[in-house]
Amino acid sequence: MFSRHVESLIEALKALPGVGPRSAQRMAFHILERDRSGGEQLVRSLSAALEKVGQCGRCRMLSDDDICGICRNPRREQGLVCVVESPADVMAIEQATAYQGLYFVLLGHLSPLDGIGPEELGLDLLESRLGDGTVEELILATNPTVEGEATASYLTDIARAHGVRTSRIAHGVPIGGELEYVDGGTLSHAFQGRIQL
Amino acid sequence: MFSRHVESLIEALKALPGVGPRSAQRMAFHILERDRSGGEQLVRSLSAALEKVGQCGRCRMLSDDDICGICRNPRREQGLVCVVESPADVMAIEQATAYQGLYFVLLGHLSPLDGIGPEELGLDLLESRLGDGTVEELILATNPTVEGEATASYLTDIARAHGVRTSRIAHGVPIGGELEYVDGGTLSHAFQGRIQL
Repeated sequence: MFSRHVESLIEALKALPGVGPRSAQRMAFHILERDRSGGEQLVRSLSAALEKVGQCGRCRMLSDDDICGICRNPRREQGLVCVVESPADVMAIEQATAYQGLYFVLLGHLSPLDGIGPEELGLDLLESRLGDGTVEELILATNPTVEGEATASYLTDIARAHGVRTSRIAHGVPIGGELEYVDGGTLSHAFQGRIQL
Repeated sequence: MFSRHVESLIEALKALPGVGPRSAQRMAFHILERDRSGGEQLVRSLSAALEKVGQCGRCRMLSDDDICGICRNPRREQGLVCVVESPADVMAIEQATAYQGLYFVLLGHLSPLDGIGPEELGLDLLESRLGDGTVEELILATNPTVEGEATASYLTDIARAHGVRTSRIAHGVPIGGELEYVDGGTLSHAFQGRIQL
């Protein structure tokens, strides 16, 4: 309306999750009026992240390196692999629980209607890990939604075919909720109380 | 924790108003997992805005040019100047009312304890406009807070010294609220019902 660049900045900010037109405008004005150094820092961090952050070749976690820090850590229990839907779930588990095994990040869940099948979830990568004999237990920590449960059930079949024990994190995580937003105590309890499938 | 670049991006996003650690993390993961082109667009728009957007030399509105589009528009009523605290207020007034005069943006309000005096609000610039004889009425649309009222009162004295009529937008804007968030109808009504000081 009055400045093409401000309009374009507001549009770009609206692409962020949870940011509507009003918040985007407020953010744009805040940066331009009061916090230009914060804006410059955001440009630098975002450019660097977009350029450098890729996926870990073993677990598909967001990572600066080919193999992420957790996969490279020899002190993690190599026989335990926890399957989650998103990197945010790994963050939540690391912050709230004493889990010391490894992860596998699906970056989604099975959803045939959206064209998301086993390939999109990197299940060939997971199968090759299950096939090499190091994995003793696959902990299924997909979200307790319909799609998450279907994905867990599919993963159980795969693990069984490779003779790998599976477990599902316990109830305690409210059904229908998103793992990412569960409080730490509930999440920790869910890990303790996992049941054999 | 697991990626230095992701950590740094989350930190940078927390500088945005209304964004806490959880939202910042969600935004970072959203961009890196699902919307890298949106992230690149944000880098471009933000860099361009930081480089190109400055202040209008007449009204202190955020502007791509030395003089903003509203100040340059000969069809706006040159004798009317509306004083507001922030660029967001100009946006709100332009969107909600039929006001066709000019603006002056204080970028704040008088607040001696924070070291914000007449100089920081660009009142020398406003006085030179009041002194050149084109301004017939100064409409005071500062926020109906203690500081906004004090600023309005100070501006009334200045305008009186230059023989310029002043008015204050009408009640209808709830006292203690922020102009930026008032609904359009109330704001429009407040413009219609402004009273002579």
